[in-house]
Amino acid sequence: MTRKTNFGAGPATLPAEVLQQLSAAMLSYGHTGLPLPELEHRGAPFAAILEECNALLRELCDIDNDYEVLWLHGGGRQQFCMVPQNFLTPHTTAAYIDSGYWAREAMQYAAYYGQSVTVASSADTAYDRLPEWPATLPLNTAYLHLTTNNTIYGTQWHTLPAATAPLVADMSSDILSRHHNYRQYALFYAAAQKNLGLPGVAVAVIHCDMLARANRNVPPLLSYAAQAREKSVVNTANVMGVYASLLMLRWTKERGIDAIEAENAQKAELLYNHLASSKLFQTRVAVAAHRSLMNVCFSATDTRHEKALLQLCEEHNMTGIKGHRSTGGFRVSLYNAVRLPDVQRLVTLMQQYEDSVQE
Amino acid sequence: MTRKTNFGAGPATLPAEVLQQLSAAMLSYGHTGLPLPELEHRGAPFAAILEECNALLRELCDIDNDYEVLWLHGGGRQQFCMVPQNFLTPHTTAAYIDSGYWAREAMQYAAYYGQSVTVASSADTAYDRLPEWPATLPLNTAYLHLTTNNTIYGTQWHTLPAATAPLVADMSSDILSRHHNYRQYALFYAAAQKNLGLPGVAVAVIHCDMLARANRNVPPLLSYAAQAREKSVVNTANVMGVYASLLMLRWTKERGIDAIEAENAQKAELLYNHLASSKLFQTRVAVAAHRSLMNVCFSATDTRHEKALLQLCEEHNMTGIKGHRSTGGFRVSLYNAVRLPDVQRLVTLMQQYEDSVQE
Repeated sequence: MTRKTNFGAGPATLPAEVLQQLSAAMLSYGHTGLPLPELEHRGAPFAAILEECNALLRELCDIDNDYEVLWLHGGGRQQFCMVPQNFLTPHTTAAYIDSGYWAREAMQYAAYYGQSVTVASSADTAYDRLPEWPATLPLNTAYLHLTTNNTIYGTQWHTLPAATAPLVADMSSDILSRHHNYRQYALFYAAAQKNLGLPGVAVAVIHCDMLARANRNVPPLLSYAAQAREKSVVNTANVMGVYASLLMLRWTKERGIDAIEAENAQKAELLYNHLASSKLFQTRVAVAAHRSLMNVCFSATDTRHEKALLQLCEEHNMTGIKGHRSTGGFRVSLYNAVRLPDVQRLVTLMQQYEDSVQE
Repeated sequence: MTRKTNFGAGPATLPAEVLQQLSAAMLSYGHTGLPLPELEHRGAPFAAILEECNALLRELCDIDNDYEVLWLHGGGRQQFCMVPQNFLTPHTTAAYIDSGYWAREAMQYAAYYGQSVTVASSADTAYDRLPEWPATLPLNTAYLHLTTNNTIYGTQWHTLPAATAPLVADMSSDILSRHHNYRQYALFYAAAQKNLGLPGVAVAVIHCDMLARANRNVPPLLSYAAQAREKSVVNTANVMGVYASLLMLRWTKERGIDAIEAENAQKAELLYNHLASSKLFQTRVAVAAHRSLMNVCFSATDTRHEKALLQLCEEHNMTGIKGHRSTGGFRVSLYNAVRLPDVQRLVTLMQQYEDSVQE
């Protein structure tokens, strides 16, 4: 079976060399005499995996030991629960910036745990841009939550104004995709299945000042403080998943954030430039400065073209470009493991289709 | 590197053929043109995996469609949270049978969500037997929770008296290990990493009458009702982990519960018989009828023998027999994928050691 090029939003494509290493590790891991999935989660080989993960993530994000790095079960939604459960109190409010589907989900999850409010939203323009940064926040704001990249609507925060409350960022879809000031966050988290590995693992990175404010009355599994004390193994870890993250971190370091950032910009530019000149397809994002470099979302002027392009891509072994079920249209995800030649082939195919239609 | 025989309590050993299939799937899954980890969690190939998992689990547990089968993130502790969060109310009490470490943990987790009480315990004899079955329960009991097999203390409920409250069972370490009346439970759950696959996945099986009583005000990720509505994909599933469970279910069906039960009994008998005749090692469990067929826990009369046997086993490529950090001594886990010849080799080695010492 020919390997398809996967532009899917997640679970996202992984580098061939990472898959090869995972495949080999399923049978035997290093000198342990055991396959990777059988490694004892409190034993030395897995402790070494966790330590290297922590060191690489700190290095690649340029943060120090005043941030705790935690490797946890589940994905972004588990963090949607843990953030308010750990930081909301009966006397505080969680402030959320509503930049689209995931940002809104995060806010709605917080409402199960206490008071949460939307302090900025671009819902009134169907999320075709980022919201205005909030001018004020409630006085009792526990934290201000944002989603740095909006996979479904194709917008991304490229720079952030200052905030008066601790910033909490869901970076599931753009962590390690560029140089970024991670130090502006009290907490940032990411589901692993885009730039960091497999579904079933999330990383949460918390500044010690924030951690010191965490609620005490939280079950240990869901407590950032307990997970920090227990070095991410309050319970049996997702050994496979954490190791996949390690392989992705090594791969990221080997390429370097400089090169990754440059290639990500090139990939996005190629696609946005094509859309700008296209008569059949147009980007959904109204404000150019808000466009995502990770997920390029666009729609067809005619549903006929939508169906035709989707089919053409499948015929050419490209998959995952269908838009989210809530928006329709197209979504081309350009995570780190999607490479420039992949995008060049896609754009060439789109151009050929347009030429054939206009003839 | 020689493959070690792994008697570890979890992550537990997996059959070689399952590991081979997982290893191959990391590179390419069926006719999808994608590696397994890239399968879209809402796409047809993964839906087929989930459906086959559900059908096989129902068949092997001999339960009907009036039970929902859910494949969830995390392990047993996530269920320690979800059970009370979904079923405890301000007016009800959760009753827990304290048969050891995990049973107690489950009860302590419930206390974060409401009122939980211990209705039976064998703590006073250091868990060397199962507790007496509770004669009475609080009138407002929401459910009665038990741990069917106690990995750390080596005890197991082989039959259960009737209960006046809905029974909830943590079956993490003995699910599918024998013929069993699963229909007596309103809910049973298991972390996958023993008889069902990899860490990072748990299965929860809930009778529809119980599900109808679930609390409504629970975040969808942690709500059994929402997970049932969404067929286990409220969020991005642990695609790898669920597929590993499918492979384990197929492997279990191919062997058959009859054969598995018979071999599990043989394995345990071999080890318990050896311990009964041993002058150096003795079982920790006082009541023979309470002994676990899954985890045989024993201690040495002299710490000298403890160290020597641990070392001897490592020299002979057997690992994972060290007891839990809370008890010390030995714990030999005999999950389904540990085979009779493995146990025969271990017992032979123990006998050789005893002979050498007594000479």
